[in-house]
Amino acid sequence: MPKVVVLRWGHRPRRDARLTTHVALTARALGASGLILANIEDEKIKETIEKVTKNWGGPFFFEMGTPWKEAVKDWKAKGGIVVHLTAYGENIQTSDMLQRIKESGKDILVIVGSQKVPREFFSEAFSDFNVAVGNQPHSECASLAVFLDRLFEGEELKKSFENAKVRIIPQKRGKKIASL
Amino acid sequence: MPKVVVLRWGHRPRRDARLTTHVALTARALGASGLILANIEDEKIKETIEKVTKNWGGPFFFEMGTPWKEAVKDWKAKGGIVVHLTAYGENIQTSDMLQRIKESGKDILVIVGSQKVPREFFSEAFSDFNVAVGNQPHSECASLAVFLDRLFEGEELKKSFENAKVRIIPQKRGKKIASL
Repeated sequence: MPKVVVLRWGHRPRRDARLTTHVALTARALGASGLILANIEDEKIKETIEKVTKNWGGPFFFEMGTPWKEAVKDWKAKGGIVVHLTAYGENIQTSDMLQRIKESGKDILVIVGSQKVPREFFSEAFSDFNVAVGNQPHSECASLAVFLDRLFEGEELKKSFENAKVRIIPQKRGKKIASL
Repeated sequence: MPKVVVLRWGHRPRRDARLTTHVALTARALGASGLILANIEDEKIKETIEKVTKNWGGPFFFEMGTPWKEAVKDWKAKGGIVVHLTAYGENIQTSDMLQRIKESGKDILVIVGSQKVPREFFSEAFSDFNVAVGNQPHSECASLAVFLDRLFEGEELKKSFENAKVRIIPQKRGKKIASL
């Protein structure tokens, strides 16, 4: 399975606090290796995510403050490809783009925007694929989830996390948590 | 395809404004027929969602203020089933629960929580299925997206919306919107 890292762009500390947290938790729960919060630092989110990883397991890294261009250039220099999630891109359901991504066999940096993104995100210099989880406006969190679920073909939901202190025992009714 | 309505529970107007908006937009974009905001009214979210539906098409209804128990009882009285999305439930990847849901052939009310949900949500009186999109903490928005994508088997991302004023023309690079 390819290694996936999520690059969160355009985070505004107060306004986007919960959404960025959800994006990061989705990245972790659905099989990404880490999240880079581009261009800005947000200690509160870092704490929240690291607390979840400490309790529920990892590995999952949270990095912040890296300029987005630098993150993209580093990734490409290491041989990875860049996927930009956008409602304007090729439709994941009607195009063969996901197959092309998989066949590349390369690690994937997934760019997830928040506010209106720079035009450059769409250019060949930065993105290899512009991927739309449907061509309707909705949510970067939802798009990321469907993209990862399809990329990993559901296997990510069976993943066992390392060094977890707690784990849910799935139940038809009620809640069951095991301390490890 | 079954009719799906999302019941959003536990919305706190300021704190959850953007997340509930994302949940509603995800519901619309991924094939649900409408969203019921339980127990509370939030005119601002209603406006946002109705504006999206007016521009990008529908049908998609936004209802608010209905007590959750009433919404669930009405749904069941009409012969529908209730799916509660929770990290504690049966894993959508490792159990046959989705198949059982599909085989029921019934319309589905999907309960999506926010804060800690009442114990009753897990009981037979209210939920027919407790569904976990993985047994890790993450996001109700992500869970809803994956659930709908798997339920509708991707067909929802090809859906054409009625009475839309604008539509995206998918592109490998850049943005293209058609006015209709």
